[in-house]
Amino acid sequence: MIILTEAELREIVGLDPDAVACVEQAFAALATKAVAMPPILRLDIPEYRGEVDVKTAYIPGIEGFAIKISPGFFDNPKIGLPSTNGMMVLLSSRTGLVQALLLDNGYLTDVRTAAAGAVAAKHLSRQNSSVAAIFGAGMQARLQLEALTLVRPIRDARIWARDAAKAKGVAAELAARLGFPVNAISDPREAMSGADIVVTTTPAEKPIIGAGWLGPGQHLTAMGSDAEHKNEIDPAAIAGAGLYVADSLKQTRRLGELHHAIEAGLVERDADFAELGRIVAGRMPGRTGDEQITIADLTGTGIQDTAIATLAFARAGAANAGTTFES
Amino acid sequence: MIILTEAELREIVGLDPDAVACVEQAFAALATKAVAMPPILRLDIPEYRGEVDVKTAYIPGIEGFAIKISPGFFDNPKIGLPSTNGMMVLLSSRTGLVQALLLDNGYLTDVRTAAAGAVAAKHLSRQNSSVAAIFGAGMQARLQLEALTLVRPIRDARIWARDAAKAKGVAAELAARLGFPVNAISDPREAMSGADIVVTTTPAEKPIIGAGWLGPGQHLTAMGSDAEHKNEIDPAAIAGAGLYVADSLKQTRRLGELHHAIEAGLVERDADFAELGRIVAGRMPGRTGDEQITIADLTGTGIQDTAIATLAFARAGAANAGTTFES
Repeated sequence: MIILTEAELREIVGLDPDAVACVEQAFAALATKAVAMPPILRLDIPEYRGEVDVKTAYIPGIEGFAIKISPGFFDNPKIGLPSTNGMMVLLSSRTGLVQALLLDNGYLTDVRTAAAGAVAAKHLSRQNSSVAAIFGAGMQARLQLEALTLVRPIRDARIWARDAAKAKGVAAELAARLGFPVNAISDPREAMSGADIVVTTTPAEKPIIGAGWLGPGQHLTAMGSDAEHKNEIDPAAIAGAGLYVADSLKQTRRLGELHHAIEAGLVERDADFAELGRIVAGRMPGRTGDEQITIADLTGTGIQDTAIATLAFARAGAANAGTTFES
Repeated sequence: MIILTEAELREIVGLDPDAVACVEQAFAALATKAVAMPPILRLDIPEYRGEVDVKTAYIPGIEGFAIKISPGFFDNPKIGLPSTNGMMVLLSSRTGLVQALLLDNGYLTDVRTAAAGAVAAKHLSRQNSSVAAIFGAGMQARLQLEALTLVRPIRDARIWARDAAKAKGVAAELAARLGFPVNAISDPREAMSGADIVVTTTPAEKPIIGAGWLGPGQHLTAMGSDAEHKNEIDPAAIAGAGLYVADSLKQTRRLGELHHAIEAGLVERDADFAELGRIVAGRMPGRTGDEQITIADLTGTGIQDTAIATLAFARAGAANAGTTFES
């Protein structure tokens, strides 16, 4: 087996068109192939404000499948450690043997999560979308904006975050890196007004985006909610969208923004909605008009992990990167 | 983090009283502490007759928790590879950081599974049990007999396996190693007749032990069934036992021998039964008489993995074993 460290993975895998393409293909596979994606295994350690998610998915035709371990321990910053972390194990689909240990400390998750944002925007936002509003000031806020630039001609962006100083810092950083104006805006409604694409990337447990705030033609990707208690969007906005799209309907009914709309009684528990993969695969239309309000509800899926781990493994092979280990 | 290979783990962890004690304590914790043990994550890859189980459990008071990845790919022997495999990741309960990668290829699972057999026999078989009957001729058949010798004065054993030649080979091997008579017996009922302890360790999908075969005072541990389709014991034997004990009732209702008794309509779906941990912790009586027929239904639990991984990590630290790896 081969062991790849975070530093090695950062050198060989970036948020680039290949990363977006591999995640896009994985979503298409989810809709068209006999993908096996069991429910997320979740362990909670409330004593230490800790949680661990384990995700996996097998995509027929792909040589390997990833098992991803994602811990989040929210008291870590108090002792100078990052909250989130993790690694992936890539196993052969044919023999179950471990092919690679990807000690990425969550880096590949960052990339594949941002790539899913790009895929959603590519298939749901208006093609000429040029103004983006990003909610949040963490790593995903940065990456989601960068991801949008890979699929849409973004030339102006706004950042809103609960902590205005952080929003300013991220805005300055992104403006310098991306070469177009990025401004921190302290009023959330103002931040998203007139934006073509809105992306929420916060750990909010209460809606930060109100029901009537979305305007004609806007696309919203909500990617902060990956657990029952997280909620970024007013449930009425979910219920009222022109097109609501889940990454995995099974997951968003349980974990995503949809879950809160169901809990609020605004959506039937078994109501059928589009899934991103079906749109990518051409089995369903995406956006059907310039005035339509579209919402993508992304909870994060095992197929994305398998896709990015497979890309990393292939690139490591090509670059002769990593350490070989026998056991 | 530290990386330990199978060879290193074999040197520092064996099937010994400490291994049995750590698994025994883990069962007690399951009954007395706020253990978190989520349902097993299972992925099936039917194209290659492959399956992967991921198990985990957090035991309050233990510094780490293991996430175990257990693949079984049953066409592997055709290409000269073992069917089963796997590794464990030990994470800190306090920070979620990876403490150790235990590249054990399933070795630690073998040990902790055998140790659970010892714990069951210690609490359920008659104290003077001296004759054992083992069904199966795989690694677990060997280890289960060895495990029994750690807790009971075994001085005679029989081996039954579907493949009589294999049974003979294993019997000869065990007789030489353990220093008492071990005989292969080709009739299964004869093999278990008069045995104090019977252990089944086969991948059987149809009962290999009939309903009326168990005699007064016998203890049976069934540990082959760790998936819905596996079934070693006639469901009527389960329903008719004097004392039925699950490792985890939640699991045996779904995966174990109990599952088949429920499916057969012989046991109510929500019928309450003893769990091994409650007996170990003294919360319930174990065997209450020399004539009682007792059955332990072991499906394998995440607490055993956390227990053995913690033991391995402690011993590696003491022995300064393994390779340190930064990521």
